[in-house]
Amino acid sequence: MMRTRAAVAVAAGQPLEIMEVNLEGPKAGEVLVEIKATGLCHTDEFTRSGDDPEGIFPAILGHEGAGVVIEVGEGVTSLEVGDHVIPLYTPECRECEYCLNPKTNLCQSIRSTQGAGLLPDGSTRFSMLDGTPIHHYMGCSTFANHTVVPEIALAKVRKDAPFDKICYIGCGVTTGIGAVINTAKVEIGSTGIVFGLGGIGLNVIQGLRLAGADQIVGVDLNDDKAVMAKHFGMTDFVNPSKIDGDIVAHLVELTGGGADYTFDATGNVNVMRQALESAHKGWGESIIIGVAGAGQEISTRPFQLVTGRSWRGTAFGGASGRTDVPKIVDWYMDGKIEIDPMITHLLKLEDINHGFDLMHEGQSIRAVVEF
Amino acid sequence: MMRTRAAVAVAAGQPLEIMEVNLEGPKAGEVLVEIKATGLCHTDEFTRSGDDPEGIFPAILGHEGAGVVIEVGEGVTSLEVGDHVIPLYTPECRECEYCLNPKTNLCQSIRSTQGAGLLPDGSTRFSMLDGTPIHHYMGCSTFANHTVVPEIALAKVRKDAPFDKICYIGCGVTTGIGAVINTAKVEIGSTGIVFGLGGIGLNVIQGLRLAGADQIVGVDLNDDKAVMAKHFGMTDFVNPSKIDGDIVAHLVELTGGGADYTFDATGNVNVMRQALESAHKGWGESIIIGVAGAGQEISTRPFQLVTGRSWRGTAFGGASGRTDVPKIVDWYMDGKIEIDPMITHLLKLEDINHGFDLMHEGQSIRAVVEF
Repeated sequence: MMRTRAAVAVAAGQPLEIMEVNLEGPKAGEVLVEIKATGLCHTDEFTRSGDDPEGIFPAILGHEGAGVVIEVGEGVTSLEVGDHVIPLYTPECRECEYCLNPKTNLCQSIRSTQGAGLLPDGSTRFSMLDGTPIHHYMGCSTFANHTVVPEIALAKVRKDAPFDKICYIGCGVTTGIGAVINTAKVEIGSTGIVFGLGGIGLNVIQGLRLAGADQIVGVDLNDDKAVMAKHFGMTDFVNPSKIDGDIVAHLVELTGGGADYTFDATGNVNVMRQALESAHKGWGESIIIGVAGAGQEISTRPFQLVTGRSWRGTAFGGASGRTDVPKIVDWYMDGKIEIDPMITHLLKLEDINHGFDLMHEGQSIRAVVEF
Repeated sequence: MMRTRAAVAVAAGQPLEIMEVNLEGPKAGEVLVEIKATGLCHTDEFTRSGDDPEGIFPAILGHEGAGVVIEVGEGVTSLEVGDHVIPLYTPECRECEYCLNPKTNLCQSIRSTQGAGLLPDGSTRFSMLDGTPIHHYMGCSTFANHTVVPEIALAKVRKDAPFDKICYIGCGVTTGIGAVINTAKVEIGSTGIVFGLGGIGLNVIQGLRLAGADQIVGVDLNDDKAVMAKHFGMTDFVNPSKIDGDIVAHLVELTGGGADYTFDATGNVNVMRQALESAHKGWGESIIIGVAGAGQEISTRPFQLVTGRSWRGTAFGGASGRTDVPKIVDWYMDGKIEIDPMITHLLKLEDINHGFDLMHEGQSIRAVVEF
């Protein structure tokens, strides 16, 4: 049992509280990680706010981190003390029916306990100083200086990569780029439309550039987003509020009949429909990345599908984390992808609530907490 | 100019009228075909009834025929007098952007005139004896003893195949089998669920058998459909009206987590949703085959897609008709697929309205008119 410092989501809708917490050491198959940096993602805020119907409190949120292995539990063979790691909210056990099927990355080996805010043995490692258990979050809980994570949920990465940048590969970068290369499997010369130019959308854009897309259209209601999106490879910007008439018709015309691939990175179900319907007749695929509000539904006329469009989705960019995340870290270090301009704010743990304010104000792409 | 006998849809919602009509000879790129047999499909009835918002009258309906080339127009090189042919409502020009893209079969070369009930030069070959033009239908108009069809919309098939069986390959057989092998690309050992065990659904079932599926579940409200479906390869039958509780949960359990592939052959948008949601998490694909009523929409929670299901559609089974239809005729002649038990009624042209009655009463799988 050790003590560490964490930002605790004590109750739905409350600001996070910075406090000392107890942390038990790793049990069999688990690893103690010192978190060096963690990004603040909309998903953390979705849960913190109380909008997430599956939110459990108290909990230590955070799922976009990077750190160093401090101690390994019994039976851990793939990691050792001193390894640099990125925690994975989608693990990769390499043994379950899902891991053995190349069509999916949704490892189910620890799904039920993870969803309940517990480690695989059904208990928590975190507790308040008074002994009250604190739940884990997405199997990661990176809003703590130290955390315990199952071995199968840690990607081992090179030691020369900066924590305050590669933490973003733990969610946003991989989700955006992976949607392009793993889920859509975009071919050279394709056209793509990206709805929403936030932290995910920008990574979809650089994924499309990496895949060799010819035309990369970005769609956002905020003109200010265009500068950064162009930097990452956007060729055409469309602000729907400045279009006369139907946005879908406009995009279909702009892309010569619709895009080969469209991506929703907004979480807005109406935008998801626009994304589908601006995909090309005959072969266009639309990929949902954004998470919609509880109970919301997508709709379209079935004719859209019968005439050849596909409607799909992606989680964690279709990436198998232990296999793919180290490669993406290499790509970053080799200059094939960029991360630095997207890390707009570096904060201390004490200022983590300010980081959510920056998110709401649209001032940050990614705020990162450094320990 | 010749005369031929046809069943004419004089006005929306009226019974077809059997009459002599004028038929001009084939112009450049066109072919005069003597129709030997034609199936009666729900799509014909959808238009005849007046429910089809794009229906045009007067017209000669019918799109599931087989016959013999009587005369070829100027410039026709791929067909000659005496060839046996199946008219294609989805042509295959092999030159347009769509034909050159292996992801789609939706040749667009004559789309606009075909949709307007005209041949590619913008006129009709059929007229009433008083000179009133009669529109073509889906580019085929097989409810006439003779019809004129563009060369690119005719599949040349072997001469020993019986017209009263292979006419069904012009729509239902190819749509159902093609949905499995061209659109879904079902792998050996897969599980499949087929919603609706009519003329299309039965062909999906035999397509799944042909593709080597392990479990083939058929879903229909009518228990009587099970006998024929079993004959074609169904392994499990489910009547939703006899299930306690949620049909989706029942099917997910029956298939060990959901099916690899599900197919809607009902045209009911609520069933389309059930089909999607009974596809397996992580990799299940749902294919919409049925045509929904005008203005109807499909819906689901985006979570269904984000967790790995794909929603797709198919038209003419994803088949490129001139290339694929002759192969399917071979499969029939070689005994790889069956058609005979599905042709439940043979009618004369005079009795064509009775054929639609049989369809409504659920007595026929396919009624075929022989000339």
